[in-house]
Amino acid sequence: MTSAVTSTFLQACMGQVPVRRPVWLMRQAGRILPPYRQLRAQTGSILKLFKTPDLAAQVTLMPINMLEVDAAILFADILTPIEPMGCQIDFVPGPVFAKPVRSRADIDALRTIDPQAQLPYVLETIRLVRQALPPHIPLIGFAGAPFTLATYMVEGGGAKEFTHFRRLLHADRGAADALLDKLTEVTITYLKAQIAAGVQAVQLFDTWIGALSAPLFEQLALPNLQRIFLALEGSGVPRIYYANGATHFLDLLPKTGADVLSLDWRSDLGQAFQRFGRHLPLQGNMDPCALFADPPAIIAEAERILTQTQGLPHIFNLGHGVHPDTPCDNVKLLVDTIHSFAP
Amino acid sequence: MTSAVTSTFLQACMGQVPVRRPVWLMRQAGRILPPYRQLRAQTGSILKLFKTPDLAAQVTLMPINMLEVDAAILFADILTPIEPMGCQIDFVPGPVFAKPVRSRADIDALRTIDPQAQLPYVLETIRLVRQALPPHIPLIGFAGAPFTLATYMVEGGGAKEFTHFRRLLHADRGAADALLDKLTEVTITYLKAQIAAGVQAVQLFDTWIGALSAPLFEQLALPNLQRIFLALEGSGVPRIYYANGATHFLDLLPKTGADVLSLDWRSDLGQAFQRFGRHLPLQGNMDPCALFADPPAIIAEAERILTQTQGLPHIFNLGHGVHPDTPCDNVKLLVDTIHSFAP
Repeated sequence: MTSAVTSTFLQACMGQVPVRRPVWLMRQAGRILPPYRQLRAQTGSILKLFKTPDLAAQVTLMPINMLEVDAAILFADILTPIEPMGCQIDFVPGPVFAKPVRSRADIDALRTIDPQAQLPYVLETIRLVRQALPPHIPLIGFAGAPFTLATYMVEGGGAKEFTHFRRLLHADRGAADALLDKLTEVTITYLKAQIAAGVQAVQLFDTWIGALSAPLFEQLALPNLQRIFLALEGSGVPRIYYANGATHFLDLLPKTGADVLSLDWRSDLGQAFQRFGRHLPLQGNMDPCALFADPPAIIAEAERILTQTQGLPHIFNLGHGVHPDTPCDNVKLLVDTIHSFAP
Repeated sequence: MTSAVTSTFLQACMGQVPVRRPVWLMRQAGRILPPYRQLRAQTGSILKLFKTPDLAAQVTLMPINMLEVDAAILFADILTPIEPMGCQIDFVPGPVFAKPVRSRADIDALRTIDPQAQLPYVLETIRLVRQALPPHIPLIGFAGAPFTLATYMVEGGGAKEFTHFRRLLHADRGAADALLDKLTEVTITYLKAQIAAGVQAVQLFDTWIGALSAPLFEQLALPNLQRIFLALEGSGVPRIYYANGATHFLDLLPKTGADVLSLDWRSDLGQAFQRFGRHLPLQGNMDPCALFADPPAIIAEAERILTQTQGLPHIFNLGHGVHPDTPCDNVKLLVDTIHSFAP
């Protein structure tokens, strides 16, 4: 890994304090960028963008030049590996399942996946991106965490409040466990294939995990997260766990075995470093809504987080994905502010 | 207040440990009850149900007989006082604003309200319910908290993730403060009118407050909550504050000045009593999704919470509103389990 030496992002993942604070943004490759919107309009369907390696690679690379972020993240959807499990999903633009996964029979019918055969376009995208990236900019692969994937699958799409999976876990714990177990296997297979194809770090997205109480997180979700991170231990790439709204079981997060924890804006990063110790790198955590402020306020908010984490292994990111209609200039200002700050 | 002597709910609100654990459920008056569904179908429009005192009173009273809960809660919507402020709202069935409140001009155009003149049906419903209730069953009035109301108004209705108000507070803090200030005034006026009409306790619902970081909660939301609870201090009725997803600033909640805190299932009530002390009554906090379990699991989950809070001033409730399609028998089983437990 030549890039391990020169990438500030990878240095921070390994617990070092790089000469310049690394930054990338969740959902950086997409709607905030005008050329993406143009490409999206030309292409017609977002599924076609996901499934055409040349186009997906272009989108993945866009924020590197335009925003000058320190890592690229694969342009794909967290539901990408769910389709080959046997679910038909439309994007309108949010995901809608033709048939939600609700019963034990639905769960038993789900298949494991073969990424080489069923998701070749993802692996080809990774190879194309790696060829194009300079050595100091690594490519991050990713997957949805089992609980978050299960939440979408049982709900059947997006929702104001996701309750169907939580209902299932109370109504039929065996079925809920079976679903999480299958998703754990699929996630391991999928991330291993991404690593083999060339991603240099992986992030597991657990957007909806905060709906669980601490005891349920520990019983239901933690063992699967541990299995995933353990399975990737020998892969040589840093493993990042993004847990949204998880302040009520923050102390349990290091038990996942992730190398880096990515937190949302509800956490105080300075306090989190004190709690966990400086050997655990943290990523985050500006509120994406703060990017709608005026320039001085954006700079002030960025500097607040930069100051809290000064001299610590920190990767700057948002606390959640960047909102599609965020002014691109504000995002660039944020990146520039971070880069001009003393590490 | 004759009822203060005999109501187990009011006893617990005052810090006592009643002979039997009091219980009521958020959204107990509504879709879970078959006679409600019948009435709703006959009436056609939910707005007509809200605005016809005789019908709204019937709905308010239904769970008292059917579920044998220990308090009634006014059948109304948290957006009820928003319409007379100048917003046109449809229920389809979730609320949809004809025009979201987005700009400073929109906010300045909002009016304060005169409940006697503009919401007479709410006050008449309260009077009808009070006439019908036995002395040991009090009526709870309620309002949405300013942040949660603002979230709906700026978003323009329900959403998967509410971001528009959080954007506004970053983009134009003065406008956000002006909106919260106006909503604070309206909420005080509205709750005072409910108390004058006869409600014997009030609950302030802050469903979306958990989206704020602790510092923003303290700066932006807390002063308004303090104003509301202080304005109602001399009213002689207990003031309950329901904060959903607020585990990351739990320690700030007693500063609101509420007499009772109502918490969601992400908090551990036993730990919360230890943190706050037994002089602060707590309400909550079973996951509404747990009501989809089988009877032994429902009993076990209820008893877990009852045991945690034994000998303490606790009002049993859910951590969020009861889901509309919850089996009614399960809800009755929950209430019976609570009532048969040693206090």
